[in-house]
Amino acid sequence: MTSIELDHDLIREGLSEEEIRALQPEVDRCHQTLTQGSGAGNSFLGWLHLPSRTADKPLADIEQVARELSECSDALVSIGIGGSYLGARAGLSFLGKGAEGGMEVHFAGHNLSTDHLADLFDHLEGQDVCVNVISKSGTTTEPALAFRLLRQWLIARYGDREAARRIVVTTDREKGALKQWADAEGYRTFVIPDDVGGRFSVLSPVGLLPLAAGGVDIRALMEGARQQEALALATSAFERNPAALYAAIRHGLRKKGKTIEILATFHPAFHYLQEWWKQLAGESEGKEGQGLFPASVEYTTDLHSLGQWVQEGPRNVFETFLRLAAPGRRIEIPTLQNDPDGLNYLAGQTIDHVNDQAFLGTRAAHLEGNVPNMTITVARRSPAALGALFYFFEYAVAMTGYLMGVNPFDQPGVELYKKNMFRLLGKPGQGKG
Amino acid sequence: MTSIELDHDLIREGLSEEEIRALQPEVDRCHQTLTQGSGAGNSFLGWLHLPSRTADKPLADIEQVARELSECSDALVSIGIGGSYLGARAGLSFLGKGAEGGMEVHFAGHNLSTDHLADLFDHLEGQDVCVNVISKSGTTTEPALAFRLLRQWLIARYGDREAARRIVVTTDREKGALKQWADAEGYRTFVIPDDVGGRFSVLSPVGLLPLAAGGVDIRALMEGARQQEALALATSAFERNPAALYAAIRHGLRKKGKTIEILATFHPAFHYLQEWWKQLAGESEGKEGQGLFPASVEYTTDLHSLGQWVQEGPRNVFETFLRLAAPGRRIEIPTLQNDPDGLNYLAGQTIDHVNDQAFLGTRAAHLEGNVPNMTITVARRSPAALGALFYFFEYAVAMTGYLMGVNPFDQPGVELYKKNMFRLLGKPGQGKG
Repeated sequence: MTSIELDHDLIREGLSEEEIRALQPEVDRCHQTLTQGSGAGNSFLGWLHLPSRTADKPLADIEQVARELSECSDALVSIGIGGSYLGARAGLSFLGKGAEGGMEVHFAGHNLSTDHLADLFDHLEGQDVCVNVISKSGTTTEPALAFRLLRQWLIARYGDREAARRIVVTTDREKGALKQWADAEGYRTFVIPDDVGGRFSVLSPVGLLPLAAGGVDIRALMEGARQQEALALATSAFERNPAALYAAIRHGLRKKGKTIEILATFHPAFHYLQEWWKQLAGESEGKEGQGLFPASVEYTTDLHSLGQWVQEGPRNVFETFLRLAAPGRRIEIPTLQNDPDGLNYLAGQTIDHVNDQAFLGTRAAHLEGNVPNMTITVARRSPAALGALFYFFEYAVAMTGYLMGVNPFDQPGVELYKKNMFRLLGKPGQGKG
Repeated sequence: MTSIELDHDLIREGLSEEEIRALQPEVDRCHQTLTQGSGAGNSFLGWLHLPSRTADKPLADIEQVARELSECSDALVSIGIGGSYLGARAGLSFLGKGAEGGMEVHFAGHNLSTDHLADLFDHLEGQDVCVNVISKSGTTTEPALAFRLLRQWLIARYGDREAARRIVVTTDREKGALKQWADAEGYRTFVIPDDVGGRFSVLSPVGLLPLAAGGVDIRALMEGARQQEALALATSAFERNPAALYAAIRHGLRKKGKTIEILATFHPAFHYLQEWWKQLAGESEGKEGQGLFPASVEYTTDLHSLGQWVQEGPRNVFETFLRLAAPGRRIEIPTLQNDPDGLNYLAGQTIDHVNDQAFLGTRAAHLEGNVPNMTITVARRSPAALGALFYFFEYAVAMTGYLMGVNPFDQPGVELYKKNMFRLLGKPGQGKG
């Protein structure tokens, strides 16, 4: 089962079923706009059919290169930021270690932290290492700096020729500094499709190569995504398209003054999927004064932190729970003589069972505190479920953007800080700092 | 230097200097309420003087036990949730590894994740281990379950008597299940003061023992906190009490419709300090419909994720930056022949320099996008700076709570989900699920 279930519980402060139904015609129109490619940002709709239109050959090429890299390396450093970082990281953290035959995958180029880089270099000592640098232009500051340093490290370790064999580049088909550089040095390259924006690129080589290197079955991943694509594109009727329903409810709640969406989980494995979702939602919707603030919590940890605020703070918030239907490993609670902590009533139960009752208790408590909620349930931590989740959120966020009346595929606001930074750094042609 | 500097830049969408000055009398009143102990929650003001009133003996006792534990152990597992978890974790993550003579410190009991526990047990194989369980009552589900499992593991490994020697309990002075259990088994105990609530307890044995075990100089930490205490309690005049000014601005911005505070850093080392702050602020202020939503971001990572939203989304937000004045380690940017990525203009500069220009560029860009900001600068990642930061935020959040008209020291909303959960789990005396 790769299907994703969506429940919602919006009584009191949220939307009525009637109000939800009233959104169907608007959703139908946006679905048409999206699937016919007639809306804003329509030159970036390549993600819409990536699962169904990615042929066998490109997948086999990725698998082949991942295999070759793992034959000579203990660890891959995946260099990228934003959409060239979060998708692969989300996938590897969701699936957990122990993916068969996979390398350790480390990430770099997603910040300017000296500590992060220094710790990474410390860690790589004594390991055989390869690098996948992922950048459309090759000139984005963070990944370009990290690549400079890691390439220098590889050359010092292995010499020019062997270093070149250990570097794989994911970049533009023909333009850009990184493409030119790769051609000059003879690095192997994979292509970032022109019509796929960064935050929608996880199911392209951007995400697939580091995932494959980490041991993920990328064919199962793509098959899960393909099933979700078929579901989402077949109809926008709420009862058969939970992603459309999720989008509609988000939009409806936003119009009712719910300005913060908390994506909540009871499983730390979802952590980077939450981070991936924050970029997807925040960058797609946060423009022209629109957009839900995308926040995330990890319960039960954060019930002892933000739980008070969620229960009794301002009522400008709703929760979307990410739930796992089937647990992973199993830990049973032991019996103790004399019951010193009063927990013998749980003896013989599993930690997972207690965790799921905490989820049910929390959802009900927060609803009673006037926090509407939705619950997205996936079967298990499998590549197929992961692929389905990626596509589910991509479709839903694109849909929400159109419902909000913005272009979900641009990011006009991310240039200003760079312009300021380049001026301060004295970049040629940027004026004085 | 342990002093904390606070800058603000609130022009345009924020508060005027005049509006800030107008808040001084209200702040003065709340300062009196706080320091005279005449306000709501005044039986929980023990944190106010912890730095100045903690004598040498209790610190020496903590250091002694930390030393004894580290003589027989490679790793300490610190078991706790909420305020019995986040303070020590924040401190150890802020100061980074390499604290002299410290053990590895792991955390448990802060969630109900089977994966987390199973990974921890895997990791502990082959290590010598001790445990510090931190719980006022001893019956909070998460830490109590983790302690059951870890105690069982210790007994299986070492036998009853040696296991008991490796368990240290931080709990109530005389009441509660854990205190009784500790007395019966002969565990060493430290006391959680009656007048210090969980989220304000990091400078008590709750935080100090795991910090000392991790190699932190807790005397330097307390001295930094003591200097901050002296500053904060001497006067509430904005020009000499930056914590009071921070509280006033937060309150003023909240009244102007800024409902989300983003605590932003450019250094991953601040990650768990941000999490600690989220509990401190969220749980103290989020009640009776009040309270800023406390969010956190790690830039530059999140500039490629939430940056678009912050720049151009709804203007219901302000940013508080956590800045480090002095960098830690040093990585220099190399020159490349032919400048293939166009970054030679940075050659010879450090990564930290680029990071700080990214900070300055971001702050200016977001201000131009009508996001008011404050900047909290600390000198370096030292125990003294950490102690000062802890106290700074404790005072500021208590002050903000009083300004908002709520009791900053209770948490009435955290019981409901537990009640639901206990019913679902069939806890005796809770009714049927």
